[in-house]
Amino acid sequence: MRGTGTFITFEGIDGSGKSTQIKRLAEHLRTSGHEVVLTREPGGSPGAEEIRALVLQGDPDRWSAETEILLFTAARRDHLERTILPALAKGSIVLCDRFADSTRMYQGLSRGDLRGVVDKLHNLIITHEPDLTVLIDMDPAVGLSRALSRQTADERFEAFGEDLQRAMRQGFLDLAQEFKSRFRVVDGARDIDLVATDIARLVDSELG
Amino acid sequence: MRGTGTFITFEGIDGSGKSTQIKRLAEHLRTSGHEVVLTREPGGSPGAEEIRALVLQGDPDRWSAETEILLFTAARRDHLERTILPALAKGSIVLCDRFADSTRMYQGLSRGDLRGVVDKLHNLIITHEPDLTVLIDMDPAVGLSRALSRQTADERFEAFGEDLQRAMRQGFLDLAQEFKSRFRVVDGARDIDLVATDIARLVDSELG
Repeated sequence: MRGTGTFITFEGIDGSGKSTQIKRLAEHLRTSGHEVVLTREPGGSPGAEEIRALVLQGDPDRWSAETEILLFTAARRDHLERTILPALAKGSIVLCDRFADSTRMYQGLSRGDLRGVVDKLHNLIITHEPDLTVLIDMDPAVGLSRALSRQTADERFEAFGEDLQRAMRQGFLDLAQEFKSRFRVVDGARDIDLVATDIARLVDSELG
Repeated sequence: MRGTGTFITFEGIDGSGKSTQIKRLAEHLRTSGHEVVLTREPGGSPGAEEIRALVLQGDPDRWSAETEILLFTAARRDHLERTILPALAKGSIVLCDRFADSTRMYQGLSRGDLRGVVDKLHNLIITHEPDLTVLIDMDPAVGLSRALSRQTADERFEAFGEDLQRAMRQGFLDLAQEFKSRFRVVDGARDIDLVATDIARLVDSELG
């Protein structure tokens, strides 16, 4: 069912350099002869992109937290079925910008009782976990200034102050403890080339 | 949380006369001085209607069964939070054309293993059941000819042959057995006025 490919996710606060590092890793892996598929959440398949648009457009309060979790889980299921699993079946390496850990972190942070709902939905509907999760860890002050300088489009995900970014950083570090066997924490505050070299090395060693 | 209102759902195969009978019951209850809210699924709130449109538009195979169940559950949660529970809190009688029993029946029929997924999602996210469910039971040949003569818009839900209608009728009757305490089965193949009188009488007795 899972195929012979490798499923690698990237997590980290906004501005931590995930998308830059994913591109760098993709180049490195392709140079080594691997088939690489780049994708991201929320979205990553035509259906999931439509659901993503429905969630992110309009008044931020138009959906309750519970409805939003269901919609994101529906998008993730579609993304998994239509993009991730078919690529893994062909033996590709799938690099995904955010996955279930982002949902766990965001929802657990916004309301403690939601983490249980997220986990139950994941175990019922998604079931798959990444083979490897690269957490790009960074001081929120650095991350926030990078995110603001980019002026990226998804304002609901970017418009957080420094206190919340700090709580998010800690939330990701807690997940790295909880899922020790698949998480690798990388210091993202260093020079981009150094970070890229680190990630390439740890992924190479994981691929054997 | 649930308020002092009464939540009544209508179930039955297409063409069984649900919408006609809901209107008749609403008139009857309003004449008796009750506040009545009419609603329907899928849909029933602005957000749920948008999700409904996303599910029903386009290629019938664009969503897997699992993704579709998640989307309908998201729509149901929104409908419950924005329409049903606020009306019950005000003491209204809510009459709803289809609810969770339709999902149980349709998904259980299409793939046996999905009934368990539907139930787990319901228990996790929806939790509320109707106080009373009126099942309008009817021979599928009668129901189908009525549905075809109406040429209603939601073709995905109407375009079923007689064998499938027969299985659906049985599916609803099985649910009536499973949830005996809240289901009332009404013979819908009789004259509309007779059916309406029956339903008014049983709802009046339920309201005490």
